[in-house]
Amino acid sequence: MKKINTSPISGTQELLPGAQAIFDSIKAKISEVYHAHGFIRIETPIIDRAEILFAKAGGDTEKQVYRVFKTAETAEKADEALRFDHTVPLARYVVEHENDLSFPFKATQIGRNFRGERAQKGRYREFYQCDIDIIGRNSLPISYDADIISTLLDAYGTFLETPVVARINNRKILSGLISALGLVEKSADIFDIIDHAEKVPLEATKERFENIGLSENEINKMVAFTNLHGSRDVVIGNLSKLDLNNETFTEGVNELDQVLKLLEAEGYAGKYEADMKIVRGLDYYTGTVFEFNLPEHKEIGSVGGGGRYENLAGNFTDQFLPGVGGSIGLTRLFYVLNENGLLKSDAEKLIDYEIIPVSENENGYAMGLAKKLREKGFVVDVVLTDKKLGDKMTYAAKIAKNGVVVGETEIVTGNLKVKNFATGETSDLII
Amino acid sequence: MKKINTSPISGTQELLPGAQAIFDSIKAKISEVYHAHGFIRIETPIIDRAEILFAKAGGDTEKQVYRVFKTAETAEKADEALRFDHTVPLARYVVEHENDLSFPFKATQIGRNFRGERAQKGRYREFYQCDIDIIGRNSLPISYDADIISTLLDAYGTFLETPVVARINNRKILSGLISALGLVEKSADIFDIIDHAEKVPLEATKERFENIGLSENEINKMVAFTNLHGSRDVVIGNLSKLDLNNETFTEGVNELDQVLKLLEAEGYAGKYEADMKIVRGLDYYTGTVFEFNLPEHKEIGSVGGGGRYENLAGNFTDQFLPGVGGSIGLTRLFYVLNENGLLKSDAEKLIDYEIIPVSENENGYAMGLAKKLREKGFVVDVVLTDKKLGDKMTYAAKIAKNGVVVGETEIVTGNLKVKNFATGETSDLII
Repeated sequence: MKKINTSPISGTQELLPGAQAIFDSIKAKISEVYHAHGFIRIETPIIDRAEILFAKAGGDTEKQVYRVFKTAETAEKADEALRFDHTVPLARYVVEHENDLSFPFKATQIGRNFRGERAQKGRYREFYQCDIDIIGRNSLPISYDADIISTLLDAYGTFLETPVVARINNRKILSGLISALGLVEKSADIFDIIDHAEKVPLEATKERFENIGLSENEINKMVAFTNLHGSRDVVIGNLSKLDLNNETFTEGVNELDQVLKLLEAEGYAGKYEADMKIVRGLDYYTGTVFEFNLPEHKEIGSVGGGGRYENLAGNFTDQFLPGVGGSIGLTRLFYVLNENGLLKSDAEKLIDYEIIPVSENENGYAMGLAKKLREKGFVVDVVLTDKKLGDKMTYAAKIAKNGVVVGETEIVTGNLKVKNFATGETSDLII
Repeated sequence: MKKINTSPISGTQELLPGAQAIFDSIKAKISEVYHAHGFIRIETPIIDRAEILFAKAGGDTEKQVYRVFKTAETAEKADEALRFDHTVPLARYVVEHENDLSFPFKATQIGRNFRGERAQKGRYREFYQCDIDIIGRNSLPISYDADIISTLLDAYGTFLETPVVARINNRKILSGLISALGLVEKSADIFDIIDHAEKVPLEATKERFENIGLSENEINKMVAFTNLHGSRDVVIGNLSKLDLNNETFTEGVNELDQVLKLLEAEGYAGKYEADMKIVRGLDYYTGTVFEFNLPEHKEIGSVGGGGRYENLAGNFTDQFLPGVGGSIGLTRLFYVLNENGLLKSDAEKLIDYEIIPVSENENGYAMGLAKKLREKGFVVDVVLTDKKLGDKMTYAAKIAKNGVVVGETEIVTGNLKVKNFATGETSDLII
């Protein structure tokens, strides 16, 4: 009987072994793809200086940062906290180690981040993020934005059975449009309304535009603009037709065009589209922005995203460090895929061979046999309990794919049999 | 110029990419070996209930636990903390998921733990531990102790160039001896003196025995006993000659004998010895105890260890759960190996091929070529900067093993050359 509540705290992920194995394998595949694309694995501490973390946090994030302390008396002075994303520690890392790195620096970080959010379904306080970033010194060509997007597309491809599509935009396009329409003072509101447009009915979006004082004509322009999405030809064509004489707008269209062209040349046709609805909530992004969706499971919403940021570490250094990055929020994604039945629910048994000594006299031989099978790359366990043979078999069948019984006779004759627990078939063990 | 202190906080590990790659590869090898031995990977949250963590902590550990909070006002009520080891969360996990697990349950956890220790050289506040544990329900045969030790020996073997030896003991032997000599009330002191005997001169150990009131005869017996180490024949032989009529002592000797016999049968001769000096500091251990040392680098001290514990989760459940476990403290070990020059200092470059487009017109072709090479398993990056070709080559030579220049001619003729940056040699690229 339990004496205490032993559930993990809400907002954390704790999986049974089968689900954990699936989670780990997805994480490993993402890491492999990132690395194959030339992203260098780095790892920053989970505990970092509060002044570093809070330099960027601000707003809601600031309220969510976990600070750490040892005794209640010292809590007020706590100058250490848990990282809430990978970008701030990356900024610190790049500034700290600048002289030891080559730029553009392509980095990947896969690990847990922490936010003291009110726990709710699918929201996590402790969650894995799988990030890639490319940091330039002084400048970073737009082609790298395509590099990030194609890397993420490849990563999704390794574990998603359902198609994934990158929806790409450039914030300069909307900024330029707003400017050309003389609506600059309403810029933040417009970005916010478009960012939420997909989650509410069209009428609600129109109403919000109306509430901030847009004319019917302006609203219609915004709605038409926001609905613009599709191939490079269609979107870039239509944007050019707008014939807006605004430098930022033109710059945004050109950058978007370059990113789409490069993805085309790389052979990603059908896996991306331009979409004016994608603006990303964060001011942080200054150019390219993108989100990944599952077209066959629209209810799931975004499964990852990222964008271009003008200067990674302006709070930490005078050195200008433009960057582009993207992230897969793995803990949430895993939860969502699971909820939607998009993961194989029937996890494979994790052990290839269970060696079953008849009595403890055969334990030594059994462990030697296990060693030989491991050298061939198998996952092998030996039942070392002093239970009856039948009980040992039951245990073996529960955790392993195959069983090998080792008794006196088997040792003397060297004739070993493998039982496949799924089919019940028996065959000779070949070592 | 830096505007702020960007060093990581003291007591955390932050590595440059080359060292990080070595660290990651060691971690992966340990994980592979553990899994090949049938240990199932699980992961528990880093943030856990304070009442769970403090149920076991006590003493020095309790003072070192990091608690977490969001605002100073709520700090006093903080009921969450960072795990300080893997054993307490494992206990919670096993009790929480008992009905979904098969026993004996062989689990491995590799991850970061946290202790708010005063930072000093080689001491970490945030550190990786690589644990294996086997948990029985009601009982767990002694053979599993050998299973843990041989798994750890195999793990060290994958990354240490220098030999490693398991030094094995059983705490029941010393307990029995103390009992037989009528020194039970001095038991804690005697364990502590022997635990530290290796780190101080013999005279200091004798003096400490004298200080707790042992007679010269008793001291001589203790010293002789403590010096006992070597093969099974020698140690078990000498222990049997003591002819102590004490049940605990006899049980300890028999258990030790069985563990050594099984390791012998498994073929680990020369990689382990019995050693009466090994008692481990923690009361927590009740039977088998072991430590791993590098005989050619005695100055390094223990590089890992573990032992048998009578009941994993007595604070959480009435269910009796005996276990045996071991751990490699990877962050400290990595630091020590590095300090002692036992790691290859010259980390290999991490990128196999750097594709170098002459101008941005070739970016698309270059990225397509990169894709093909990745499909063959290579780590491939493309230089997408708009620098001069010479600058691109310098960058490529810094981060990659090989470079492939792609210009108009190369695209037209399809004749691609690889330059090996280490040798300077050029050859045809075969795709």
